This record gives sequence, C-alpha cells and structure tokens, in this order.
Amino acid sequence: MEIQLRVTFQPQGRSVFVLRGTMILEAAAHAGLVVETPCGGSGTCGKCRIQVMSNAGAPTSADKQKFSDQELRDGWRLACQNPIETDIVVFVPQASLFGGTHQILATAESSITKEVLPAIRKVYVELSPPTLEDDASDLLRLERSIGPFKADLHMVRHVSKTLRAQGFKGTAVLSDHRLLDFETGNTNGRCFGVAFDIGTTTIVGQMLSLRDGKEIGVASRLNPQVSFGDDVLSRIKHAAMRPENLDELRLTIIREIASMIDALCVENGISRENIYEATFAGNTTMEHILCGINPAQLGELPFVPTHTGGLLVPAVELGIPIHHGALAYIFPIIGGFVGGDTVAGMMATGMYGIKEPTLMVDIGTNGEIVLAHKDKFYAASTAAGPAFEGARIECGMRGSTGAIEKVIFDGDVRVEVIGNVIPSGICGSGLIDLVAELLSHGIVTPEGQLLPKEELPQALAPTFTRRLQSDENGETSFVIAEATPGKIVPPVLLTQRDIREVQLGSGAIRAGIAILLRNAGIKVSDLKTVLIAGGFGNFIRRSSAQRIGLLPAGIDHHRIRYIGNASLAGAKAALLSTEVRRHGEELARQVNHVDLSTAEGFHEQFSEAMIFPSMMDVQSDNAYGPT
Amino acid sequence: MEIQLRVTFQPQGRSVFVLRGTMILEAAAHAGLVVETPCGGSGTCGKCRIQVMSNAGAPTSADKQKFSDQELRDGWRLACQNPIETDIVVFVPQASLFGGTHQILATAESSITKEVLPAIRKVYVELSPPTLEDDASDLLRLERSIGPFKADLHMVRHVSKTLRAQGFKGTAVLSDHRLLDFETGNTNGRCFGVAFDIGTTTIVGQMLSLRDGKEIGVASRLNPQVSFGDDVLSRIKHAAMRPENLDELRLTIIREIASMIDALCVENGISRENIYEATFAGNTTMEHILCGINPAQLGELPFVPTHTGGLLVPAVELGIPIHHGALAYIFPIIGGFVGGDTVAGMMATGMYGIKEPTLMVDIGTNGEIVLAHKDKFYAASTAAGPAFEGARIECGMRGSTGAIEKVIFDGDVRVEVIGNVIPSGICGSGLIDLVAELLSHGIVTPEGQLLPKEELPQALAPTFTRRLQSDENGETSFVIAEATPGKIVPPVLLTQRDIREVQLGSGAIRAGIAILLRNAGIKVSDLKTVLIAGGFGNFIRRSSAQRIGLLPAGIDHHRIRYIGNASLAGAKAALLSTEVRRHGEELARQVNHVDLSTAEGFHEQFSEAMIFPSMMDVQSDNAYGPT
Repeated sequence: MEIQLRVTFQPQGRSVFVLRGTMILEAAAHAGLVVETPCGGSGTCGKCRIQVMSNAGAPTSADKQKFSDQELRDGWRLACQNPIETDIVVFVPQASLFGGTHQILATAESSITKEVLPAIRKVYVELSPPTLEDDASDLLRLERSIGPFKADLHMVRHVSKTLRAQGFKGTAVLSDHRLLDFETGNTNGRCFGVAFDIGTTTIVGQMLSLRDGKEIGVASRLNPQVSFGDDVLSRIKHAAMRPENLDELRLTIIREIASMIDALCVENGISRENIYEATFAGNTTMEHILCGINPAQLGELPFVPTHTGGLLVPAVELGIPIHHGALAYIFPIIGGFVGGDTVAGMMATGMYGIKEPTLMVDIGTNGEIVLAHKDKFYAASTAAGPAFEGARIECGMRGSTGAIEKVIFDGDVRVEVIGNVIPSGICGSGLIDLVAELLSHGIVTPEGQLLPKEELPQALAPTFTRRLQSDENGETSFVIAEATPGKIVPPVLLTQRDIREVQLGSGAIRAGIAILLRNAGIKVSDLKTVLIAGGFGNFIRRSSAQRIGLLPAGIDHHRIRYIGNASLAGAKAALLSTEVRRHGEELARQVNHVDLSTAEGFHEQFSEAMIFPSMMDVQSDNAYGPT
Repeated sequence: MEIQLRVTFQPQGRSVFVLRGTMILEAAAHAGLVVETPCGGSGTCGKCRIQVMSNAGAPTSADKQKFSDQELRDGWRLACQNPIETDIVVFVPQASLFGGTHQILATAESSITKEVLPAIRKVYVELSPPTLEDDASDLLRLERSIGPFKADLHMVRHVSKTLRAQGFKGTAVLSDHRLLDFETGNTNGRCFGVAFDIGTTTIVGQMLSLRDGKEIGVASRLNPQVSFGDDVLSRIKHAAMRPENLDELRLTIIREIASMIDALCVENGISRENIYEATFAGNTTMEHILCGINPAQLGELPFVPTHTGGLLVPAVELGIPIHHGALAYIFPIIGGFVGGDTVAGMMATGMYGIKEPTLMVDIGTNGEIVLAHKDKFYAASTAAGPAFEGARIECGMRGSTGAIEKVIFDGDVRVEVIGNVIPSGICGSGLIDLVAELLSHGIVTPEGQLLPKEELPQALAPTFTRRLQSDENGETSFVIAEATPGKIVPPVLLTQRDIREVQLGSGAIRAGIAILLRNAGIKVSDLKTVLIAGGFGNFIRRSSAQRIGLLPAGIDHHRIRYIGNASLAGAKAALLSTEVRRHGEELARQVNHVDLSTAEGFHEQFSEAMIFPSMMDVQSDNAYGPT
C-alpha cells in the first residue's frame, strides 16, 4: 500500500493525507483551498506562492526564477511545481488564495488582474447637522459625503429619524449605489455576504467578509429535496404536477439555506442583518426552483429555461433571511441542463480566459462538461446519475466519516476510510478506485459483468475470490469490508447493479466528452488541461478515473487538475466582484450549448462508452477521440 | 355691470363666461385648457393656433404672418393675440394644447421641441416557439424582439406560463426597460397613466393615454386631510404627535386618490390594471405624507425635508391601486416649503428656459413664488393661509356652484355666482374683487378697517351704507348678498376678521415677491411676465389683485397671464416624458430656496404689506420694488 503523507495548511489549520508525489497545489485543493493559478499551473505566473515550513524539497528552476535565495532558504516555493515527498506544514498566504487578494483571475486578453469590487460598500460618515445657512435635505446631505445613490421607499421613510437619533453620524451601507441602511456608529468591520452552491444532492454555503474577502465559515448539507427524488428529472416531475408542489420544493430548500445561514451566524457571532448580499450558483433546475420558477418545461423537449440571464432580486422575495434590504444574485444559465454552477466554475477556474484547449468536468448528480478551444466554449450536461455522490449505490454514501474513499488491491484489498473509523459505506472516489481495480484484476469484465466465483481468472488470489458471493437470485456481489463480529456493523458490498450505475455515469460523461471534442474538431491529445470539479468525499485517483473511462486516457496525469467545488468558488468570486458577474453574464451567452440527448451520434457513443476500456485501450489512447 | 360673453371650446365641449376684451388664450386657461405658448404669448411662435367658428374678429398683424388668407377667412387665429368681443365657439386642435402634441416646451438654449417619450412602452410581438434548433430561454426569446430588459422576480415566475398560454403572442409592457407585464392579444390601445396635483386643500387627478397623450378624464376632490387642519403646519403637527397619526393622514389621502382613480376608470370604461404609471406633484409636506415620510422636521427650524430628489417607487408600496407592477413618480422638491408642485409648475410653464425676468405666483393655501432672472431661479413660499381657497372666511367656499366669484360696484353691488344660483358663499376671486371695491370706495381703510356706518365717507350711496351692520360686540360686517325671504338661505357677509385674513394672505405674498425681487436685484418694472397659477373657482381680476396689493401694480395687464393648475400640467408632462423628469430634477437643484421666515427684512416687509396700497400707490408703482 502506498504511503500516505500528512500535509497541514496554515493559517487555515486544515490537514489532508495524500500520496507521495502529489503536487502541493493539488493537496491544497484537496483541503478546500483554491490557490491562484492564472497560468494554468505551468510555473510561469508566480501566483501560487506558498511557504514549506520545514523539510522543503530542493527548489525547481521555476522556483529559482520567482524567489530570492533567502526566500528559497525560508522554504518559499510555487505550489504548482513542488511534489510532496514527506509530511509537511505549508503556510498559504491570503494573497495566494483565489479571491483572497482583491484580485480576480485575469482575462486572457489583458492579463491584468483587477481589484475586487463587491457591490456592497460601507462608508462611515460624520455629517454637519442642518443649519439656517445650510438647509439641504437629509438625503442630499448624505449624498455630499458618499456620492449619488438611490434609496428604497422604506429607507427614505426612516433615514431622517435615524440620522437625528445618531447625531448625523453613522455607517452608510450601499449596494451598488442603493442605500441599504444607515447604521449606528462605525460598523465597517461588520460587512458580510454568503455564497452558495446549490447542488442536486448537496448544498454548500460559505460566509465571507465583504471587506477583505476573508472566509468566515463554511457549511455543507444534504439538499433536503432528495426526499422528492434524487435527480433533477424527478424534481421537475414533482414540481410540474401541481402548483403547490413547486412551493413545497422551494420552501424545502429555502428553509435549509436559512438554517445554514443561522448556523454560520451563531458559530461566528454574526448578526443576519450584517449579511448584505447572497450569491447562488446551481444547475438550471435548482436555480429555477430556488427562485420559484416552474421548471416543468425543463422536463420536456426542447428543454427551454425561463431565463438564462443572471437574476438580481430582493433576498426577502426569495425568503432568504439576511439584511431586509439585501439582494440575492442568481448565476446566469447556459441552457436547460447546463446551469449557473457551470458558469460559476468557468469563472472560478479562469476558463473564461484560457487560450489552450481545456476541458472541465464537474462530476455531480449531473456531469457538466465544458470544453474551451480557440475562444469558443462548448458545454453539455449528462445525466450521470448520483452514483458518484454515493446515491443509488447499495452501500453508497457521501464523502463523510465512515466512507471508504480510497481502495487499493496490493495483494489484498486495502481501504482508506474517512475519519479512520470502521467503514460504513463507500463514496464516489472509493467506488471509482474499486471498479478500476476489479477491472484490472479481471473480476469485472469490460462489459461490466461482476464474474461469479467459478468464472474468475485462475490466477486470482483467494483473498479476492473469497470476497465474491452470490445470493439466492444468482446476483453476484463483492465484499469490500466484512461485517464486524456479531454483525453490529454490516458488511460493505458492491453489487452487480452498482456496477451498472457506475457504467451509466461514467459512460454518459465519456460519451459527452467525445461529442464535445468532435464538435470542436480536436482530439484528446490536444487537451492541455483537464480540470476536475466536484464534491467527492475525497479526490479521485486519476489512474482509476482513466481506468474506468471516466477521464480521457490519453492525457498525462500532470495535466489533470482537481479544483474542488468550482461552483462555490465562482459564487464566492461573484460575491466579491461585480466584474465577475458581468463577465459571467457575457460568458453564459457565448457558450455553445450542446444538447446531448439530441446530438448526432450520442446514443451510439453512449452505448459504446458503457463498455469499460480494455487495458490496451487505456494504454493506447483509443478510449477517446473523434469517431 | 360689465357684459359677460360666453366662449365655448370644442372638441372639449367646455364653456366659460368672460369679460369683453379677455384674450382667447386666457379664456381657454379659464376653461382648464392649457394652450401652448413657448414664446410667452408674444404672437411670435405660432403655437397657439385656434379656429374661431363664427364671428371671428379682424385678424391682427401677427395672425397675418402665421396664417394663409384662406385660413384667416376660416377663422384661424392666434389665441394669445385675439380678444373676445362677442359670444364665440372656438375649436382648439390637439396640437395647440400643452402636452398634446408629443412636444414639451422648448428649453431656451435649444428651442428644439422634443418627442414625448413616456417611461411606459407597449410592444405587440409574435415570437417563434422554441425548437430543437432554437432552444433559447423564454426571456431571451422575448429580448430578441423587444430589446434588452429587466424583469422582477414576480414577472420571471409567470412569464413562461403566460407565453405558452398565449401561443408566444401578446403585448409586452415595458416601464423604462423593465418588463411590467405580458398581456393577451394586442393591447396597444389600452395604455394609461394618471397625473395628480396634491394640494393642501384640493386634489386634482387626470387620466391620460400614454400612447398619444390624450386626456381621458379629470377628477377633483377636497383633500380629506382638511379634517386634521386646513394648513400644512397643522398637518405636520398632527403627524408628528404619534406614529399612528402619520399613517392615518397617509391613508386618508391614499383612499381618496384610490377612489378618484376608481371613478375615472368607471367613467371611462378602463381597467385599473391598464394604468401603468402615476405621477404626483404636491408641496413638500403633502409629498412627504403621501410617501409616508414623517414631516415633523418640516415644522421646526431650519425646515429640512427628508429628500429633495424625485422618488420613483412601486405604486403598490404607496397603496395606489393601479397595475401591480406600476411605478409612481413623486416630483423633486426645492426646499421645506417649496415643493414638487412648484417644480411641476416651472416645467409646465417653460420657466425652465425663460431668459427674461419672469415671476410665477401660485396662490393656494400656501403662496409659492418663483422668480426667474438671468438663468437663476429664486423660490419662496408664504403661509398665505387658505383665505383664497375660501377657508377661514366667514362665508368662504371653494369655487363651486353657489360661490360668488366676481363682485363689481357699479352704483350697486353686482355679483356673479357660479352656476347662476342663489349665492351661498364667496370664493377667492370674489373675495379679492370685493376687498378691492371696498378699498376703492373707502369702506375699508388702507389699514384694513371695515368702517362702521357712522364713519363712512359722506358721498357713499345708501345702497352701500345700508349693507354695513354691527353686531352686539361692535364688530362690523358687510352684507354682500341678503338672506332669501324667510332666511332659508342666510346672507353672505364679509367680516372684519375676513379682511384680516385677506391682509395676511395678500401681505405675505406681496412681501415674498418684494424679497425675491430684492435678492435678484431687479424691480417690478423689469418683469416681462407674471404667471398666475392656482385653483381659484374662477380667475381673479388683475385690477382687483393689483388693487389689494396681491400682484405688483407696476406691470401692464397684458403681461399678467393665468396658467391654471400648472402643477397638474407639470405632473401630466412628467407622465408623458421622462425627459421632463430629468430636467425637473436638475431644475430643483438649481433653484435658490429663500426661506422667508429667516430672510432679512421680511418681517418689516410683511408688516408694511399688511397695509393695502393707497390709490396713489397703485397708480404710481410704489407698492413694490426694492426697499
């Protein structure tokens, strides 16, 4: 079994275990820290500066170009160039984190980084009170200090009393030149926002300081709408049935979001009234339901959304319990099944400005695939199914404590379990590992059949063969982890049906990638970078993903990069910069939305892709490419 | 008694009685028709074209320059140049009416008339339904036809269902690039707005077609807030006492406005949902209360309003029952006591662009005075009191049926009564006439004393002397109209206290005019035009107004013009053109707000002005001018 190395990131205080040779950049992503890499991790831009606190390896030539000798002696390195060879502690300065530096990713044209300019601005003012000589109106008096603004009727009704009660001193809260509030005293330090990624299965919310972009806290929950069906189509069907159902679905998620915001407020000692803006990125169906827009037509050809432009609406109209005058920004949409989460991901990863052929795959309940090539963007969505999020799998679970997240066959079946406890299930990354190993050991055939004991390869060690069992219906399953003595914890199994789910999910993504490559007229080998986004419990092993055909085989490992929850990172960037929103709106309009269900040749590709690649295919790059 | 001539205006169908020699322009204003006069009535612009249907007088030289011989034979004349010599019927083309021609008054700089561009636009569209090849979102599909727009969440939630129910055909209603509605079928013909003048004593509302600016109907009501006090200060006091009082005052007027809108809808067969915008002009206190802004600080030095900029707020937040997505525009304010009605009046009269020294006096419960001179504007408000609106006068009443509106002493006391009925009271114009005649006949002294019978001039005819009576307290009063036999209708009297009210009202305006002239450094004789606005029952006689010192004596009669309800005309113009609003906003910021209560010398001026001018003063122009 490969050695696991512990990497601890400071000042964030997060630890992860990684395999020897993993780049620091990837380990950071693994720990939920998205490090700046506008150059795409090529070691040229020098943005991913980190400090290895002890046992730093020898500096690379790229390091030598970016750091002084003293800095190199102090352990400063580029995160994208340095593999991890031992347990280390890494200091990640705020300036190296995406969105933490008052910078957004540069657009390719300008390569100029820009200031973060959130829509929310706080200004503490001390106005001179009115006199006979200066009888300007209250709003005009305020305008002289903070510049022109508009105010809602509610605000106009209360501003005079507030100004007088506070002796004409206080903090004006502006939302894009609209006066949100006038608060007692200097409240510049209390200025927060929340960014949400609304997934079909998972909701993640992050609270940020709008003053400096600092992360205040993060919360993650299961999307409670799963009780109405675990994929978007079942939600659409439910919502379309009766008008009350849409409201039911909407309130279900709104209540969960409200509860997450409450939890973040309590944990961090923050008042909801000091949260002045919220951003939301989700797939098209999730965004429609969140806004109370009936998604019925997303369930019928030609799958037309109501809107594609971003929405900026009063948070109170959505039912989001933050400042009573706050706005909520809902990400623009590309098409019926490529939503705001994809746009957010593209913004977060800087795909917007990338010139070289780049593929982004966001593996969730749906698999969204984006291909950038020659200033053009192609996007598609596949109904990958929730297998990789642990759903529809016999012993599947999300990547939380007790989940098997890594599986290696090295003479025996070795597993890693999140939290180092007795395993209670398997999450997406473990599942991919397991199927890859079963394929490589001939226990699963390329067609996806889990062989019964009597048909297994002769050479297979008994440690594997004894794990295969058949039930009374002749269904075969593979025991990953035995039950505990007395069966207090039941065994963790992989069933034939589970493998079919993996085939469906993997095949759909594989076929989708093939169609997009064909549309762009390029091959797998042309791809310079493959970005993997998604909320896996842990990151999948590249070799395993390539083994089962989920990722293109013909691309070097070092070109495959994990970017974590890119949708959340995009929602966060949009909270910190109205420029990001503007670019996102433009981007969403530019992307060619490819509807796979009606794309020529997709069904053939899909049937083919349901067959796992042979070992030969994996080694020879035949698994992908133009057909 | 002077001869009354009947003038009937067509196609409006309104008749008025005027004295021989009255200009047609003035008679039209008298009938509530504001005729275009960008040249200020000098006969040069040719905008005030009307047709005298029979008995047209000889054309003037100005007429000859503007009309062909055939047109002159057909009775075409300039309304500003032709006095009325006999009963006539006058045809007023829509194009000659202010705001009815898709034109606003030219600004002096450009002299270019502009297209009316209301904020509301209706577009009937027939969209191609979505297909596999064209799966653009619903809002994008609509945008392709009508250009970029924003939509409220409410609209986004319903647009898809609406589009589908109507087969992708219908009428988009846009409010300044915001989608208000998408209506079934082609509703271009049903597009209305309402403009309101909110006076302290009177509310007037007009319904207009936003398609062509045509007047649909007009409604006038007593401001029901009078039950809380008849001047602004008593309303302010009431509102400031308890928070509930403000709401009480607000709801009182909102309910009346709603009822007026209802009445206009019923009369004209129009649905409230087809009214897409409302504009409101009123004095500062009325506007504050209408918007639910506490006017308390308008009752205390230094009389600072909450806001001076115009407000554009959802009508539903004010409680105005028109289209659920409609906006309401509240006119910008100049200062604590010079409000949106004055700004509206300035916009309506074109004072904005006038180069020559011009004075506008709006005589209502407050008297607002604006002086334009050399691109500068000076504005002041006087607490004229409601005397000229008939309040606080023993037998006072508004200018409605039964009101004595004209009084002439020609050997006997002759009165004209609105509706030719038995008089039940006296309105503002009658009051001014009466006091002027009493002064001229020596029955009232310049100090305002109504002389008792025994002190009257010897030469006074018994027909006057017998009208003077004293009560048990020694209070003298003048009987204008005797009681009917059996005293079924009581007599109409003028008391000593009434004369004091007239002195106060007239003196305040007279002093205010003097202060503004002094601030501008000009004299009465420099004034080229004096514009008189106000909601008198009928228009006051210029000679009477000058006799009592309400208007400057040293200005020719032909330079004094009546412009009717200029505030309403401005509100109407703002409904038909967002340009007018923009100019109004700029204008309100430019005006020098003169606070008379603290202006140097005002109290001396006021004390002086309380003394009525002597005959000599009136004849020699000593009544006004720099002190």
